Amino acid sequence: MRIAIDAMGGDNAPDEIISGVLESIERLGENDELILVGPRERIEGQLPPQRSREGIISVVDAPEVIDMDEPPIETLRKKRRSSISVMAKMAKMDQADAVISAGNTGACIAAFQMRMRNLPRVNRPGIAVVFPTFEGPVTICDVGANIACKPINLYQYAAMSSIYSRHVLGIEKPRIGLMSIGQEDAKGNEVVKRTRELMRSDANMNFIGNIEGRDIFRGICDVVVCDGFVGNVILKLTEGVIEGLFKAIQHELGQERLRLAMKFKPVMKRIYKKYDYNEYGGAPLLGVNGTALICHGASKSRTIKNAIMTSKEYHTKKINDKIIEYLAKTTVRISDEQGS
Amino acid sequence: MRIAIDAMGGDNAPDEIISGVLESIERLGENDELILVGPRERIEGQLPPQRSREGIISVVDAPEVIDMDEPPIETLRKKRRSSISVMAKMAKMDQADAVISAGNTGACIAAFQMRMRNLPRVNRPGIAVVFPTFEGPVTICDVGANIACKPINLYQYAAMSSIYSRHVLGIEKPRIGLMSIGQEDAKGNEVVKRTRELMRSDANMNFIGNIEGRDIFRGICDVVVCDGFVGNVILKLTEGVIEGLFKAIQHELGQERLRLAMKFKPVMKRIYKKYDYNEYGGAPLLGVNGTALICHGASKSRTIKNAIMTSKEYHTKKINDKIIEYLAKTTVRISDEQGS
Repeated sequence: MRIAIDAMGGDNAPDEIISGVLESIERLGENDELILVGPRERIEGQLPPQRSREGIISVVDAPEVIDMDEPPIETLRKKRRSSISVMAKMAKMDQADAVISAGNTGACIAAFQMRMRNLPRVNRPGIAVVFPTFEGPVTICDVGANIACKPINLYQYAAMSSIYSRHVLGIEKPRIGLMSIGQEDAKGNEVVKRTRELMRSDANMNFIGNIEGRDIFRGICDVVVCDGFVGNVILKLTEGVIEGLFKAIQHELGQERLRLAMKFKPVMKRIYKKYDYNEYGGAPLLGVNGTALICHGASKSRTIKNAIMTSKEYHTKKINDKIIEYLAKTTVRISDEQGS
Repeated sequence: MRIAIDAMGGDNAPDEIISGVLESIERLGENDELILVGPRERIEGQLPPQRSREGIISVVDAPEVIDMDEPPIETLRKKRRSSISVMAKMAKMDQADAVISAGNTGACIAAFQMRMRNLPRVNRPGIAVVFPTFEGPVTICDVGANIACKPINLYQYAAMSSIYSRHVLGIEKPRIGLMSIGQEDAKGNEVVKRTRELMRSDANMNFIGNIEGRDIFRGICDVVVCDGFVGNVILKLTEGVIEGLFKAIQHELGQERLRLAMKFKPVMKRIYKKYDYNEYGGAPLLGVNGTALICHGASKSRTIKNAIMTSKEYHTKKINDKIIEYLAKTTVRISDEQGS
C-alpha cells in the first residue's frame, strides 16, 4: 500500500512528521510504501542516511507550503505545487492509496474533495473524528467539511461513520445518536427533525434517536451525527474545556502542599495521554473516493504514526467498498427528501 | 421588590426550592417579598411555622405541575393552573417584579415570552448563561430560546448580554465574540457572516470578531453570541466533558494509593464548586419585558438563593431600561438586514 504524507502539514512540520513516518516503519508490511510530500531537498536532508528499511520511504517534490491560516480555496488556486495540492493529485492519478495531512484543514478538505471526487451515491463527504471517552471511542461526523447540512448528508454521515466505527474501531453494532437539544422527538430544528425520519426509515441503521451535548461522554452512543458547524464547535470546545479544567486543577493544586501537586502530575499526564484524541491518528474524510486522513494541526510524531496505521486499516478493511454497498442497498435516496 | 419563585420547578422541588428561598431571606431588604408559587397546602406545610421574618414569604396557589419532560406548548395549553403558567401571568399583571423557575425550560421560555412580551425593538428574547471559567465569567447567549437565529437576533443578543455582563457581573467593557468555526473572516456560515457585518457597523459594540469553541475558556472574551441550537450544545457538552473528565480522574486515582486519592478529593470538590455554573444562579431570559430567570433542573438551594440575588441585581440595576436605551440609539435595525 502506498501512503502519501504531507511533510509540511501542521505546526510541528516537518520534524514531527518525519519522526512519525520513521516510527511507523517497523509496524508496516513488505508491500507498504511511505511517500513524503514536500520540498525535496529539505525533506531528504532530514531523513537519516540509512533509512530503516531500504526503499520504504520515498520523497515527492512539492516546493510550495500552504500556511495554517491561509484562506483555503484562493491558496489552492495559487499554490498548485503545494504539498496538499500535489497529494490530492497523487490520489486522483492513483499514485497513492492513502493521503495524510496535518496541514490547513480547509485546504485539505477542498483539495481532497475536488480531486478525489465522491464515492457513488455520496452527496457530500464529512470528516469523522474519534473522541476517546471514558466509556469508549465515540465517532463524531461531521466536524467541519459541510457547515450547511441537509438531512440526506446527515443520514449518509450516520451510515458511513457507523461502518467506520464497526470495522476500524471494532464496535460490533454502533449505536447512532443525532445531535439535538433535547432527547424528545419534538426537540430540534427542521433539519434534525427531517433527518430523524430518514434515519428511522432505514431498518439497518442502529439509530437510538436524539442525543444532547452531555450524552457524548455518557456511553449511550458510539456514533454522533451533526452539522459541520456544530461538530466543529464540539471538537474545539471539548479541547477548550479540558484545557481550562486542567489549568483550574493545576491552580488549585498550587494552593496545596507541593508534594501533593507533584504526586498528581503523573496522574494528569496519564489521563491526558489516554483521552487525547490524537491517539486515534487522524480523522477520515468519509465519502471521498480514496483514503484521506486529516490530522490535528498540533500533531506530534505519535499522531502521524497512528494515522499511518489507521490509513492501513481503512484501506485493508475496504471501508469504501462497504460504504458503496450500504448506500446501494438503502432505500433512502436524495429524492426522499423534500427541498434537498 | 416582589420575586415569584416556582416552588415545583426542577428535579429537587419543592424541598431545595423552599430551602433556597429561606436561605435568601437574610440577604434581602425591608421591601422585598418572596412569593412561592405551587400547590398551596403542600408548600405551606413545608414552610417553618415561624417564618424568619414575618410577611416576607407568601404563597400563590398553582395546583398543577408541569413535568420536566412534558412537551412545552401543549402542556402549557392544558395546564393553565401550573406554577409556570401562573407565574407568567403574575409577571404580566404586574403582580411580580421577577419570576424564577428551575422547571421545564421549554415551558418557561414559551410562557414567559408569550405573557411578558418583548422589550421595545427586541425581535426575539434569548437565554444567557454565565460560565464561570478559570479566566473569569463568560456570558453565552442564546442557549436554547431561539434555534433559528437571524443576524438581527444575534446582534441584539450581543447588545443585551454585554449590558448584563457589565452591570450584573461588573465587567467594565465586555469583549464580545461571535461563535464560529475559525477566527478568520471567511469562516462560518451565512448567518455568521451577516451578523459580523451588523456587529462591525455598531461602533459602540466591543466586538472582537469570530471565536472558536476553545476560546470560551481562554480568557479572550466576556460575551459569546451564538444560535440557540449551538449554545444549547455548548452548555450541555461542557457539563458532559467535565463530568467525563472527573470520572476519568477518579478512575485513574483509583489505580493509585488510596491516600493520594483521598487527598485529592477536597481539591476536586473545591474546583467543582468554583466552576459550577449554578453559582451564578439562573440564566436571564434577555429581551422580555420583565425579569425572568431560568435555573438548571438540578438546582440546589444554593442556586435558588443565588438566582434570587441575581434577580434583585437585574431589577435594581435597571438592566431592561439600559437595553431599551441601547436599542433605541443603535442604527442597526431589522430593516438593515436582508431577508430577515
